[in-house]
Amino acid sequence: MGEFELLARVRERLPPAGPRVRLGSGDDAAIVIADGATVTSVDASIDGVHFRRDWMSLAQIGRKALAVALSDLAAMGAEPGEAYVVLGVPADLDEDGCLELLDGLVALAAETGTTVAGGDLTRAPALSLAITAVGHAAAPERLVSRGGARPGDSLVVTGELGGAAAGLLLLEDPGARSTFEPHSGQKYDRNASAEALSARYLEPEARLDEGRALAAAGATAMIDLSDGLGGDARHLAAASGVGLRIEAGSLPLAAGVAEVAAAAGRDPLQLAASGGEDYELLAALPPERFDEAAAALASAGGPPLTRVGAAFAGSGVEIRLPGGGSLEPEGFDQLS
Amino acid sequence: MGEFELLARVRERLPPAGPRVRLGSGDDAAIVIADGATVTSVDASIDGVHFRRDWMSLAQIGRKALAVALSDLAAMGAEPGEAYVVLGVPADLDEDGCLELLDGLVALAAETGTTVAGGDLTRAPALSLAITAVGHAAAPERLVSRGGARPGDSLVVTGELGGAAAGLLLLEDPGARSTFEPHSGQKYDRNASAEALSARYLEPEARLDEGRALAAAGATAMIDLSDGLGGDARHLAAASGVGLRIEAGSLPLAAGVAEVAAAAGRDPLQLAASGGEDYELLAALPPERFDEAAAALASAGGPPLTRVGAAFAGSGVEIRLPGGGSLEPEGFDQLS
Repeated sequence: MGEFELLARVRERLPPAGPRVRLGSGDDAAIVIADGATVTSVDASIDGVHFRRDWMSLAQIGRKALAVALSDLAAMGAEPGEAYVVLGVPADLDEDGCLELLDGLVALAAETGTTVAGGDLTRAPALSLAITAVGHAAAPERLVSRGGARPGDSLVVTGELGGAAAGLLLLEDPGARSTFEPHSGQKYDRNASAEALSARYLEPEARLDEGRALAAAGATAMIDLSDGLGGDARHLAAASGVGLRIEAGSLPLAAGVAEVAAAAGRDPLQLAASGGEDYELLAALPPERFDEAAAALASAGGPPLTRVGAAFAGSGVEIRLPGGGSLEPEGFDQLS
Repeated sequence: MGEFELLARVRERLPPAGPRVRLGSGDDAAIVIADGATVTSVDASIDGVHFRRDWMSLAQIGRKALAVALSDLAAMGAEPGEAYVVLGVPADLDEDGCLELLDGLVALAAETGTTVAGGDLTRAPALSLAITAVGHAAAPERLVSRGGARPGDSLVVTGELGGAAAGLLLLEDPGARSTFEPHSGQKYDRNASAEALSARYLEPEARLDEGRALAAAGATAMIDLSDGLGGDARHLAAASGVGLRIEAGSLPLAAGVAEVAAAAGRDPLQLAASGGEDYELLAALPPERFDEAAAALASAGGPPLTRVGAAFAGSGVEIRLPGGGSLEPEGFDQLS
């Protein structure tokens, strides 16, 4: 099957385009109606760098590549719009494999109301995706950058942390699944938890509704947690020109993180503070808006919102441990 | 040097953002004001697939990757706006190499008024770029897809054809440079021509002004010549639901194509009709608008516009040879 036949089969599988899209996949470029602000992010996913094919199904690889790109739109408080997909196909991936991967991506696109409006398909030495995600807002003032946090703002996170890092530990060492033990007396389904943690790594969710709710509730700055809380907090602090103090004891740990950490000889707070890929949102907002923001998430059936620290006049990020001392904030360097 | 320091050095080199760009590179996503129609295209360039590092400087690789993406905007008649750059960095490319490549890209961005508004930098097994180019128009009706050609329309091309294919032949076999001879009696600078042909392949131009001029002059369908005239004409014919008849004798050959073809034992018309990467525009327009369109290009100091055929009620593409018979239209399959 050649490029054009495969593209035709891909197009057959795409859900109907959204109302903004006047011309979708198949021409020189897509035409989209925009009236306000567009938000655009690009993200690469490459075999051996961002994922391993022996850990993930092709559908999961496609789904996660889009989720990661949509997560950037979530962190701006934007409405998802269109996605453009560059797929690099290695010699050992056949047409059915390409379609399985794209089916995973398209399923998430349909769930989130995202139109796959274009792409490029090419030979490549390794399976690789580059996703461009475009979101929309009525006006740029509705959007939240990393740069608006003010001293005194509360620092909040959506959902739970450390789950993706614990899931990754379980994937790296399947034997760890049988060695990690629930706390004594705790009612605990070990296998369900291992699956849930692995799913946090394999099938992250973009917090799109939560990002818009936080923007509406007055978030002054926001970033998604891709590199790890410590590293991403540093980006937000630097962009805002403030310091951030995080209380490690207040971090909301995902269920099972403590047990996996214990089995692996790791500190669960370190997993929560430095493990990347949770794709939760870290936001700053005035303290008096916290209840409104938490209620907005709860009423939409969303994840909990947790206050984890505050911004102060200064610079840098301090992650304070419950017993005194501090964790060194670490981030993920894509070139290392 | 890590990812974040390199990104900081890249950002220092970017020219000022255009007036639409409210938030450029360095946040989760870029924010761009849009009021009308946006036009978006993505293109991959991968070492060993789309280019060879021993033929091209890093600056040329960066420049051409953007040119190819902008060419799709030209083919819609859009005004260039923003570019987003995914750069996959192999282990043997150091930071200076990355900056040289991006300098080539940024130089073309500055020449064309394109803002580099975001990107992603990652390790990769081979040097690879994925460029998203976004253009703008006041309304979707101002833009030209592949799909509007009508029977009776004239078929026109900008500039000259076959130059990139001839340049590629010279790059593939540098010895060919010394074997191809000018026509007897012709005043002809062999080296200058070899350089000019190689430049057509190495440093193609996106016909942005010409695309907008053709759109304004009533082009009914347009496509850029990336895969080769024959293959791209087939795309236009299929999208428009018409047949296209092309007179091979009327194709405007770039200077030196005949000589290179003779030296290589190739048919120059085949190079012009099937060689890809000229990045000229192929457009359909009502015959009575041809003079206006040609004058618009000429008054802007642009390349010539040449009538090469016509659309008819039917399907498919026929390339008729001057002496009778026809050439088989070929295209480039990115997966072959």
